[in-house]
Amino acid sequence: MSVNRLAYFYDKIRKDLDRTVQFWRQHSQDEEYGGFFNCLSKEGKVYDETKHVWLQARQVWMYARLYNEMERFRNEDLLQGAIRGADFLMKNVRDPDTYKCSLIVTREGNPIKIQRTLFSECFYLMAMSEVARATGIEKYKKEALAMMDKIIGWIQVHGEGLGRPKLSGKRPCSMLAIPMMTLCIIDQLITMDPSLKYDDLTEWALEDTLKHVQRNGTIILETTTCDGKEMSGCAGRLMLPGHAIEAGWFLLRHATRSGDDELKRMAINSFIVCPFEYGWDMEYGGLFYFMDADGWSPVQLEWDMKLWWAHNEALIAFLMAYKETKDPAHLDKFAQIFDYSYSHFVDEKNGEWLGYLRRDGSVSLDFKGGPWKGCFHVPRSLMMCEQMLKELLQSTE
Amino acid sequence: MSVNRLAYFYDKIRKDLDRTVQFWRQHSQDEEYGGFFNCLSKEGKVYDETKHVWLQARQVWMYARLYNEMERFRNEDLLQGAIRGADFLMKNVRDPDTYKCSLIVTREGNPIKIQRTLFSECFYLMAMSEVARATGIEKYKKEALAMMDKIIGWIQVHGEGLGRPKLSGKRPCSMLAIPMMTLCIIDQLITMDPSLKYDDLTEWALEDTLKHVQRNGTIILETTTCDGKEMSGCAGRLMLPGHAIEAGWFLLRHATRSGDDELKRMAINSFIVCPFEYGWDMEYGGLFYFMDADGWSPVQLEWDMKLWWAHNEALIAFLMAYKETKDPAHLDKFAQIFDYSYSHFVDEKNGEWLGYLRRDGSVSLDFKGGPWKGCFHVPRSLMMCEQMLKELLQSTE
Repeated sequence: MSVNRLAYFYDKIRKDLDRTVQFWRQHSQDEEYGGFFNCLSKEGKVYDETKHVWLQARQVWMYARLYNEMERFRNEDLLQGAIRGADFLMKNVRDPDTYKCSLIVTREGNPIKIQRTLFSECFYLMAMSEVARATGIEKYKKEALAMMDKIIGWIQVHGEGLGRPKLSGKRPCSMLAIPMMTLCIIDQLITMDPSLKYDDLTEWALEDTLKHVQRNGTIILETTTCDGKEMSGCAGRLMLPGHAIEAGWFLLRHATRSGDDELKRMAINSFIVCPFEYGWDMEYGGLFYFMDADGWSPVQLEWDMKLWWAHNEALIAFLMAYKETKDPAHLDKFAQIFDYSYSHFVDEKNGEWLGYLRRDGSVSLDFKGGPWKGCFHVPRSLMMCEQMLKELLQSTE
Repeated sequence: MSVNRLAYFYDKIRKDLDRTVQFWRQHSQDEEYGGFFNCLSKEGKVYDETKHVWLQARQVWMYARLYNEMERFRNEDLLQGAIRGADFLMKNVRDPDTYKCSLIVTREGNPIKIQRTLFSECFYLMAMSEVARATGIEKYKKEALAMMDKIIGWIQVHGEGLGRPKLSGKRPCSMLAIPMMTLCIIDQLITMDPSLKYDDLTEWALEDTLKHVQRNGTIILETTTCDGKEMSGCAGRLMLPGHAIEAGWFLLRHATRSGDDELKRMAINSFIVCPFEYGWDMEYGGLFYFMDADGWSPVQLEWDMKLWWAHNEALIAFLMAYKETKDPAHLDKFAQIFDYSYSHFVDEKNGEWLGYLRRDGSVSLDFKGGPWKGCFHVPRSLMMCEQMLKELLQSTE
């Protein structure tokens, strides 16, 4: 291992994080109504004032997390941005009775669309709990815990109460996103308050996540039957390499903390290394978005596009795998993803990454913020990589 | 005008229609449960048994329309395929009380997904009325008319009753698809029974369609306010060249039948010629899928892909414009689209077209049938072009 190499990554990533946070702080603040403009062009111009709730909540979380964990971002102004965002969410997006949240709201906060899933609610919880951690203000903590109760309730009845009709042709199934998100919000709440305990829920989420490991640990399927069998059809064969890799570092972090070596090995091999192998485009580089486990043509039109977030997750995952094992092969993979990202996604002039490339690596959509891209994956990845690289560098001193 | 040129198109298109119909007849029939397998690979292999209701209903319509209008397809076997498909739909997809239809069902016909729009219902109506026309059987006609009543009801209350919650941030607006679909089903029912009258509804649909002509007739916007003003944001700036061109030939057909020369001019200039000009990719050829009227990056990931159906609509539209005006510029455009299509989409070996190309014209998804592609746009376009070319050739004899 070369210290120079780690120092090089550290330096590039640290600067990139500064640029990226600066981009959002400079362009996204809605001074009039609170919350954030999340549709921003390459240069930061607002091209749509609509507010997307996942992104609003994630930006609140991101600001508060930076404030809580990074010395140089511990400034009052950033915290105030998070608080104003949290207050916008609390006032506008959450139904006072059902706790169901909107998916999209107007600039003023009026609902445009409500999705019959529980993801807006999970990001809402993350926002509230991280602001609670930053401020110590009880109402945010209470809000996060109340939402957790609701989310657990929905999970336990397989999403009943979220508004979807029961349909006789719809078989119950396990979707990777649900246990992953569950692990994520448990981790979040315990970070806010280490005295909280979610042992049974954690056990269920781990078990449900591992159902998606198929074919002798070589692939991760997005959707399986409730007892962990493969399902027929496109949905049953669907693989999202970036999503599997994200689940991988969630699991690896859990395994490291709980000292579970078997889970650690499975997280690295089945969730991180294998999906990277089958997900990496050998011709043009970059990770594919959607794939079919049996090699049929995917049905998603954007299947072969290279999306920024998958690369953010992969940077975290391989650096974490390296940090936990010191296997240089993982650092080589990190370097491979780093090189692809810094020659394709990174905008050194304006800050924040481009998000959507064609298969061949050319830019297809050049906005920085849009309906599904905001202040989250890039700064979270840069923050976590900077933290890990710092630890690695310190341990070699 | 060269007769040879028309004869060349006629010959190629006639053979392509034969191949395409053969593809669906050979591979899609579900002998066990009725209806059709609509997820078929390039060679016609079933890669998913799920049934998509738009495509099931459109295939019924297509078979019955071919039977009704084309001498060489007037065979009992094709009609039986349509009837079996219609019976599958009637038995499985339509709610007996509300008339709401499913969007996706299992192979056996059990509902997997219901969409809170009225498009499944419109295609259901088209299927029933064309089978009624082919068979003279009353129950299909009754079914189509009963569905028409329901659809008119939903349109009149802006979609209320389809299951969408009323949301305070959602402004009422005019979506091009609704009046277009209305014109289409009116045309369909009058074709089934010329004694039917829908004068008020036709007038409303024409008026609502024309709201989408913006900026001095140079662009067609997908969504406007109810009084025909531009809306802010991405949704308000959205243009779908292929969709505008499809609306163009709907309008042109109506204008021709009703002898409305002003509408005819507007259909050709604003809905067909202008959208083709701004929608055609000058670098690689082919029509873009989504565009932003002010040149911002679209937010749809597949914006620059070349989709088969837009080219099918454009073939119909320019040939119809040529037939009605004899302006050779329209035939040149037809030839341009024809050349692109026959060098990119057409599969002379297996029949039916490929559907989804990357911007540069390379094939991204190579299936023939999928969740949104079935036995409809290609054979409808080929049938209509064959009919128009035949008329043009006969008129020159």
